[in-house]
Amino acid sequence: MERQSRPTVLLSSGIPFGKTLKSRLKETFFPDDPFKHFAGQRHRRRAWSVLSYFVPILEWAPKYKPSLFASDLLAGITIASLAIPQGISYAKLADIPPIIGLYSSFAPPLMYAVFGSSNNLAVGNVAAASLLLASSIRSSISPVNEPEMYLYTVFTAAFFTGLFDLGLGIFRLGILVDFLSRSAITGFMGGTAIIIILQQFKGLLGLQHFTTKTDLVSVVHAVFMNRHEWRWQSAVLGLGFIAILLLARHLKDRLPKLFWVNAICPLFVIVLGGIIAFTADGKSHGIPIVGDLKKGLNPISVSQLQFNSPNVSVALKAGLISGFIALAEGIAVGRSLALLKKEQIDANKEMIAFGIMNIVGSLTSCYLTTGPFSKSAVNYHAGCKTPMSNVVMAVCMLLVLLFLAPLFKYTPLVALSAIIVVAMLGLIELREMQHLFKVDKFDFCVCMAAFLGVIFVGMEVGLLSSMGLSIVRALLHVARPTTCKLGNVTGTDLYRDVEQYPDSSTIPGILILQLSSTIYFANASYLRERIARWVEAEGNIIKAKGQDLQYIIFDMGGVSAIDNSGIGLLFEVHKMLESKGIKVALTNPRLSVVEKLVAADFIDVVGKEWIFLSVNDAVSSYSFTLQQAKNDDEHI
Amino acid sequence: MERQSRPTVLLSSGIPFGKTLKSRLKETFFPDDPFKHFAGQRHRRRAWSVLSYFVPILEWAPKYKPSLFASDLLAGITIASLAIPQGISYAKLADIPPIIGLYSSFAPPLMYAVFGSSNNLAVGNVAAASLLLASSIRSSISPVNEPEMYLYTVFTAAFFTGLFDLGLGIFRLGILVDFLSRSAITGFMGGTAIIIILQQFKGLLGLQHFTTKTDLVSVVHAVFMNRHEWRWQSAVLGLGFIAILLLARHLKDRLPKLFWVNAICPLFVIVLGGIIAFTADGKSHGIPIVGDLKKGLNPISVSQLQFNSPNVSVALKAGLISGFIALAEGIAVGRSLALLKKEQIDANKEMIAFGIMNIVGSLTSCYLTTGPFSKSAVNYHAGCKTPMSNVVMAVCMLLVLLFLAPLFKYTPLVALSAIIVVAMLGLIELREMQHLFKVDKFDFCVCMAAFLGVIFVGMEVGLLSSMGLSIVRALLHVARPTTCKLGNVTGTDLYRDVEQYPDSSTIPGILILQLSSTIYFANASYLRERIARWVEAEGNIIKAKGQDLQYIIFDMGGVSAIDNSGIGLLFEVHKMLESKGIKVALTNPRLSVVEKLVAADFIDVVGKEWIFLSVNDAVSSYSFTLQQAKNDDEHI
Repeated sequence: MERQSRPTVLLSSGIPFGKTLKSRLKETFFPDDPFKHFAGQRHRRRAWSVLSYFVPILEWAPKYKPSLFASDLLAGITIASLAIPQGISYAKLADIPPIIGLYSSFAPPLMYAVFGSSNNLAVGNVAAASLLLASSIRSSISPVNEPEMYLYTVFTAAFFTGLFDLGLGIFRLGILVDFLSRSAITGFMGGTAIIIILQQFKGLLGLQHFTTKTDLVSVVHAVFMNRHEWRWQSAVLGLGFIAILLLARHLKDRLPKLFWVNAICPLFVIVLGGIIAFTADGKSHGIPIVGDLKKGLNPISVSQLQFNSPNVSVALKAGLISGFIALAEGIAVGRSLALLKKEQIDANKEMIAFGIMNIVGSLTSCYLTTGPFSKSAVNYHAGCKTPMSNVVMAVCMLLVLLFLAPLFKYTPLVALSAIIVVAMLGLIELREMQHLFKVDKFDFCVCMAAFLGVIFVGMEVGLLSSMGLSIVRALLHVARPTTCKLGNVTGTDLYRDVEQYPDSSTIPGILILQLSSTIYFANASYLRERIARWVEAEGNIIKAKGQDLQYIIFDMGGVSAIDNSGIGLLFEVHKMLESKGIKVALTNPRLSVVEKLVAADFIDVVGKEWIFLSVNDAVSSYSFTLQQAKNDDEHI
Repeated sequence: MERQSRPTVLLSSGIPFGKTLKSRLKETFFPDDPFKHFAGQRHRRRAWSVLSYFVPILEWAPKYKPSLFASDLLAGITIASLAIPQGISYAKLADIPPIIGLYSSFAPPLMYAVFGSSNNLAVGNVAAASLLLASSIRSSISPVNEPEMYLYTVFTAAFFTGLFDLGLGIFRLGILVDFLSRSAITGFMGGTAIIIILQQFKGLLGLQHFTTKTDLVSVVHAVFMNRHEWRWQSAVLGLGFIAILLLARHLKDRLPKLFWVNAICPLFVIVLGGIIAFTADGKSHGIPIVGDLKKGLNPISVSQLQFNSPNVSVALKAGLISGFIALAEGIAVGRSLALLKKEQIDANKEMIAFGIMNIVGSLTSCYLTTGPFSKSAVNYHAGCKTPMSNVVMAVCMLLVLLFLAPLFKYTPLVALSAIIVVAMLGLIELREMQHLFKVDKFDFCVCMAAFLGVIFVGMEVGLLSSMGLSIVRALLHVARPTTCKLGNVTGTDLYRDVEQYPDSSTIPGILILQLSSTIYFANASYLRERIARWVEAEGNIIKAKGQDLQYIIFDMGGVSAIDNSGIGLLFEVHKMLESKGIKVALTNPRLSVVEKLVAADFIDVVGKEWIFLSVNDAVSSYSFTLQQAKNDDEHI
């Protein structure tokens, strides 16, 4: 009688479908519950809350204090000093005029300051996405023969990137970025860093001719085919600059307080390089320079967007791919910096901000921008408090564009190359790769797919193959869920995996199987065969002892969802076992599972009395029944 | 001291990575363990086993007995009687000459008899895939203006289908078919049946002009636009035939023993129709007939395959899509019939057989074949025992092709339409759709996506959108795993979901969270936020009672895998909780998870003594620690 007193499994929650659906949808698309704070507020106050939710500046600006501004001012000036060399260098990577890189550090940061939700992110152009953009457009439009059309297509791509980001944010599809795993990003960034460094041989060696391809083989080939163009002046200067930059970084690693030396060093290198080139009349001595930079603010580029040209599809593709990788970098940077300060950022809100800043950027002669890692880290270390540091940076850029731009004419290309090389060296995370190899071999494969794919084939191939591998892995996991046989852990009433706990003992005649994750169309036929194999194997073991398999307990505690094919599978398995005279019991089904089993009448087929709260209950109940049957036999 | 005596979690299995990888790969691609029976056999015997594994006829033919042949002969003749009308009808659906349909029931069944592993499958052409093939090729090549090129492309498509099936089988990718869920098949088949029935209005009303589109709107439009072409003779004959066929089916449902009446009825309708058309000189009375059928066996069509033509991509696409749906039908039919006889079939072996039969078919003037449901069910009910029934059918077709083919010239098209309509009515499973709606709303959506997509847009759209939905669902499940708070079920030492068991009681100061499925890159950032929300919510509840949250237990029993991003998440969560002074414990991690946690040093960070075998252990251990601390306080 003991088993009657045990609590039983609840078979229904009584929650109607509509409510369940609502809560599922909410968990999927609004996991951060953005509107929870608005509940219970009065009408007008509520409208303000909603507005300031979408426009974060309304939230932080009214509370802004002078003490905060001191910090933001310092941080803003520091990142502006980084924005100049990075803007020029990465624009060269994207094969567009250097001034566009400076423009891109003016309009977008202002937009981000209004709509962005991260206090640490510094906006600007990024190396990897710039190169990806160029390699994607270059195959259709030559930046050398059609420089204008190429530039316009780059603007149009930025516009599409903006639309894409905005769309993702509005439809709360931040979930998409989750599918780019950290391993894939590590590999992709490492591979990109290497090919970007390879690209710099053009600048470092002062080459006139180079390849437009990005893979290792083509680049090495181009470097050595043009040996006659090598310029020792360029090389010496380049190595000198690299040494200075590495020294500054080393200093920062030793004395973290001197991070600003490292932050300002690229600007120093550019100024130094400019002075050398100017005094030595570099161009005639084998040191090519950037060339004329026009004074003045971003011109409006609305009429240059190419919506009717045949190149619109090129721009769309380039915009989506480079935008995706830029977005992923921006979100990842924002998240990790927020974590350091124990703040939280909302990926969907960030996407809206990125979207708006890229759309506005594309209308004002800017190209693809996001939150680059290097700049944001400097911003963080410089002690930024709010997005105001982006405003300060934009004001600095305003001054540069209005008054100082022509001075950067003498910047030697080799200085830009040196800056890029040193920045890229920091992106090759060998330690992280080693760690991946140690902890998770599959993650290491994903990382290597991206890394080697980028280096030897192309950036898009590397990115897509590693993402594909990650998704295939996730799907394979759905398609091949683990099952295991449970045994009683000696001295307890617990039942655990017999492979994990070899001391645990099985009970003759009873097979306990633990099912896990989801029982879905994608794994139903696999599970059917797998269970049949378990039953066959157990039957053979027991037969050797002269007994029969009489009872199967499915531990459903780990099954978090089931669909119609999964229920069909359970019916089939039950039928198969019944025909062999084996009794079936279920233990601990979760609510979402048990409700479906009730709706499909599976619970009635098994019998309510065969659904237990724990494996131990199921086992003791069966022993109890056996004992009773024995007693009855004896009585007769 | 009590907790010391409890068994602890085993932290390593000592199984090397290579072995784990091997067993994982085996579970993924060889879940049926095909070579298990070969182990321990001698050299020559083993070679024979392997050979007969790949060529199943070597297994069953040597044991073949006359008694089996009696059954197979009867079944073979029955399915041959079905193969003639179906061959002609479905060839018309594919817009190719009717004789190709007859050819397709000759060569492919012979191949299947050699390589196929199912004892129940009857090979032939199928309605849905025929229409899909036609609708896919028709948009590029007109079957009216370029009938030869169209036919050659159909052959080429069959060749690609064969290659595709063979490749899937050899690389053991049977797993791909698992991603076509039963709900998607139900919806797709139902929708296809409806548009195929709509297509039959052409034959039933004797129309001369018709649309080449398949969607509902176009077809209804075409039927009513051509009202002047309606022929009452055709319609009357058609309705009569449909009545006969429905009557035969009704008879079968009432008296299952008379299944052969139903099986032979289509042939009867064709013969009857032929006689009527011949005696009444049908063509001049508005009853179009099939027309000349050439005597003779399948001509060789090797030289007609279009590998160099610009249409090769059309053939490839059509072959892959129609091949995929045909394969899915064949595998599903094979599986469900095998289940009825308690046999097992190997999906990968079936794919190899389908591949070979389609390649050989494409070389001998056959088009796409698979194991159609109707024919195979008849084969099963007629008592087939081995693939020999396919050989019998092929011999019957041989006789028909050599001697009787010209007789079928007078077959009225309306008889074919009637046969198709009745066959298709059986594929619309309204009951199953109702069941889906009751049990699983999402599955119902998948089914409706296929059903409505096929009816209103097109077959490919319906198929792909439902498959896409299914995969998105699987991925969403990976991206948004369920977490729940556990409480103590009164009167036991069990801890269960507090929402499912509202009577269960929580312990003040302790939060127990159950994690589930996999902790992956795709859900790591979601889980981080979700756990933070749980902690915040619990903190607020407890604070109201004047207490602090001191202890968090993560029940890892349901977590079947973890990757590098997932481990990163655990580190971050641990850091976040530690900074709030909350102690973390893990319970019951599985072997594959715990090994990675050890490798990543996470176990050391948490502390080995905080990993427990069960939630109850973790709770009582903590209470014990608290009690001791209290005692110490009192002593001081």
